[in-house]
Amino acid sequence: MYSFRWLCLFFFLSLSLCVSAFNIPRLGTLQRSYQHEPETIISPSSDEDLKTYYYTQRLDHFNYRPDSYSTFEQRYMINSKYWGGAKSSAPIFAYLGAEAPVDEDIYYVGFLRDNAPHFNALIVYIEHRYYGKSIPFGSWKKAMRNATTRGYFNSAQAIADYAAVLLHLKESLSAQNSPIIVIGGSYGGMLASWFRLKYPHIALGALASSAPILYFNGVAPQAGYYYIVTKDFKETSKRCYQTIRKSWSEIDRVAKKPNGLSILSTTFKTCKKLSQSYELKDYLDSIYTDAAQYNQPPEYPVKVICGAIDAAAKKTHNILSQIFEGVVAYMQNSSCYDTCSEMVMPIGHDRNDSMFPPSPFNMKSFVSECRTLYGVLPQPHWVTTYYGGPDLKLILHRFASNIIFSNGLRDPYSSGGVLESISDSVIAVSTVNGSHCLDILEAKASDPEWLIMQRKTEVNIIKGWIDEYQADLLALNHA
Amino acid sequence: MYSFRWLCLFFFLSLSLCVSAFNIPRLGTLQRSYQHEPETIISPSSDEDLKTYYYTQRLDHFNYRPDSYSTFEQRYMINSKYWGGAKSSAPIFAYLGAEAPVDEDIYYVGFLRDNAPHFNALIVYIEHRYYGKSIPFGSWKKAMRNATTRGYFNSAQAIADYAAVLLHLKESLSAQNSPIIVIGGSYGGMLASWFRLKYPHIALGALASSAPILYFNGVAPQAGYYYIVTKDFKETSKRCYQTIRKSWSEIDRVAKKPNGLSILSTTFKTCKKLSQSYELKDYLDSIYTDAAQYNQPPEYPVKVICGAIDAAAKKTHNILSQIFEGVVAYMQNSSCYDTCSEMVMPIGHDRNDSMFPPSPFNMKSFVSECRTLYGVLPQPHWVTTYYGGPDLKLILHRFASNIIFSNGLRDPYSSGGVLESISDSVIAVSTVNGSHCLDILEAKASDPEWLIMQRKTEVNIIKGWIDEYQADLLALNHA
Repeated sequence: MYSFRWLCLFFFLSLSLCVSAFNIPRLGTLQRSYQHEPETIISPSSDEDLKTYYYTQRLDHFNYRPDSYSTFEQRYMINSKYWGGAKSSAPIFAYLGAEAPVDEDIYYVGFLRDNAPHFNALIVYIEHRYYGKSIPFGSWKKAMRNATTRGYFNSAQAIADYAAVLLHLKESLSAQNSPIIVIGGSYGGMLASWFRLKYPHIALGALASSAPILYFNGVAPQAGYYYIVTKDFKETSKRCYQTIRKSWSEIDRVAKKPNGLSILSTTFKTCKKLSQSYELKDYLDSIYTDAAQYNQPPEYPVKVICGAIDAAAKKTHNILSQIFEGVVAYMQNSSCYDTCSEMVMPIGHDRNDSMFPPSPFNMKSFVSECRTLYGVLPQPHWVTTYYGGPDLKLILHRFASNIIFSNGLRDPYSSGGVLESISDSVIAVSTVNGSHCLDILEAKASDPEWLIMQRKTEVNIIKGWIDEYQADLLALNHA
Repeated sequence: MYSFRWLCLFFFLSLSLCVSAFNIPRLGTLQRSYQHEPETIISPSSDEDLKTYYYTQRLDHFNYRPDSYSTFEQRYMINSKYWGGAKSSAPIFAYLGAEAPVDEDIYYVGFLRDNAPHFNALIVYIEHRYYGKSIPFGSWKKAMRNATTRGYFNSAQAIADYAAVLLHLKESLSAQNSPIIVIGGSYGGMLASWFRLKYPHIALGALASSAPILYFNGVAPQAGYYYIVTKDFKETSKRCYQTIRKSWSEIDRVAKKPNGLSILSTTFKTCKKLSQSYELKDYLDSIYTDAAQYNQPPEYPVKVICGAIDAAAKKTHNILSQIFEGVVAYMQNSSCYDTCSEMVMPIGHDRNDSMFPPSPFNMKSFVSECRTLYGVLPQPHWVTTYYGGPDLKLILHRFASNIIFSNGLRDPYSSGGVLESISDSVIAVSTVNGSHCLDILEAKASDPEWLIMQRKTEVNIIKGWIDEYQADLLALNHA
């Protein structure tokens, strides 16, 4: 039932920003379209400690054909308020932007600001290519106009961008001895961990929050994502879970009626009349999965949805009206956009044991749909070829170092995360009740004790890396 | 005096194959041209244990633009005679081809064949893209026709090719648990060490023979290369060294005469009349440097050259005639080819303390000459951005593992090599009298004891990695 179009978008969208918790598209705008220029929602100019710079970035790091000498201006922002300076080899905290303009992230991701004073760290936020103000070819429209201009839009190019910006930064600050810690969440968390693996000479360590790096090429079970969504709802309210589980066949039953799609459109107040029942089902799917993913204190969106659904059950026996009350309680506006290429995560659910109807992942259809819709051909094996996959534990146990994989086990993406430490410096820090990227959000007075402890653990590990580095540096300079 | 055209070619050529010791271009064919289809000198079909395969390789691993879906057939050869099989997790020795057709390497590089029986190892030789029978766009001529078709010709793409071939190989042999050891020499040695750094999930370890990875972006001293060439000649014969040292001004003196270039052309029996004196000087430079680089037993080419020069001194006082005798004693036929792009090694010699005239490296001129000649713009910082540079020791000390850097200290490229162990698994194995890539050549009865010992040390280290891996694998399977 879930269209591959949706799945195709899904990989970037659901892997979406830690901070976009409530940015759910309005009912009816199912096509989270990439045609629109991404909006800058929160201006960082409100932060007077933050200075914006642009780096003239190479469009293609891995090619020497003439058109790859094209460049674009990549945005990065620096907060040097807390920095101890190059002379003291004070560290640099680098936030690696993900699939959104970096402005929002700066606002929500407080981990760097919260901890920079303690470390005397410089803070830099780097925007991901093709987002915000870091768009090649002059405009979003031009950058997205065809498969050729979209071809440079991938993770290997993005982390090479980060390498170039960070080396430029160190050089311009004469901060050659300042260790860099890279930080990212979700897709950005994958980038952070991959950056440490590919550019260990640039990043001393990585904090990879909610990074589902095991979700590629058959490493994690396909059904894991929906299993955790279901578990989150079931544990919040068994009744709510059952209402949702029943709703899918009810949607099908109504849709088959004469005028059925009109009835559904009216019940769910869609902006445009539904033309297929899957449009509604995809939309509900996205609400449930997002709510589970960002099920964070103090609101706990799954509780918000289930509270409304269960309360409605006291007023009406109509299952779909109950579901709609859940939607109303949760919904907010947003516009989305994306494409699909290398991030082929085989997320499906083929057994009938979740609250969702069975929908196994079909690679062949997926690839063909992506090509039709976006003109790009996904490379399902490339992520595991370039970054590693099934053998991560065996090999990285001895090879990798200085990576924190943090996860909240209520986050459905934790099913593709590293939940057990791989070695004494590739460390998993999980919380039973945590949600997607919760640890790197700004600390609040209302934070529960387990969240405060998780962050403290992460800070201590990072401190250990930096101490070790400073000792190495001292030893080298005295050798 | 050394033209940048020459320098530009030099980076691949002098970084040239371990096995091309005596493949010096004939006098007069200074332009080691890339326009010619590379020749396959030795056919591997003579080795009946070797089977040839082709892998349909992606032209561009880092782009999703439509034309990057182009593929080419990449050649690899397998010798499974000694292999213990997938069930016993017997290892795979993978030779990573460098800047030449892989056929020659197979003939000369005996390390894999010599040691496979002891390890029950499968042997695979993979040809580097753009060489031999692994040429994109249908033919060498087409592949080289413009900067666009040459744009895919770089090391990051090449090691991604190797990753794809090796994963394909493991899959087709169901050899998921067979550890891979990658082996390469010179430029191929750099590829081997970089492959271990970038694809640790694919290669368990690397033997990087004579890999001058410190020669980039100011890591090693520019003058190191010529310093060692000079030292090799001086230690062989002080008289010969002095004759060469004096010859440069003698060439200039003769060249300034009316008809001077004709005189020089006659003295050195050039195929075409010299049009500039630097053509001769470049040529002589290439002979001395190559002789020093491949100054291997039992012939020791530096001895051959100096023997002839010193003997000639008894017959004639004409310095240039003496030099010519050295050329005659050394010279053989060859055809060469190459381009320049990312491999910008700042090799120069700006002080007057070598047997060569001062010739500091000038990056600006170098870049501009490369662009004029080949239409490609060198990226002098990319190698250190992607693979690491000045900070190698500090960072890789804790990060890297399972790399052997082997060097012969008489090889001028050892000046850019890793000569001290970085950690207990990133190990330097040097020999005082060794030449370029000597350790990975086929063992001979005439090999000196120090060479036999060097190889034994390397084999023991590799054995240690494989033992550790097998123990890890056992532990994981019993966990």
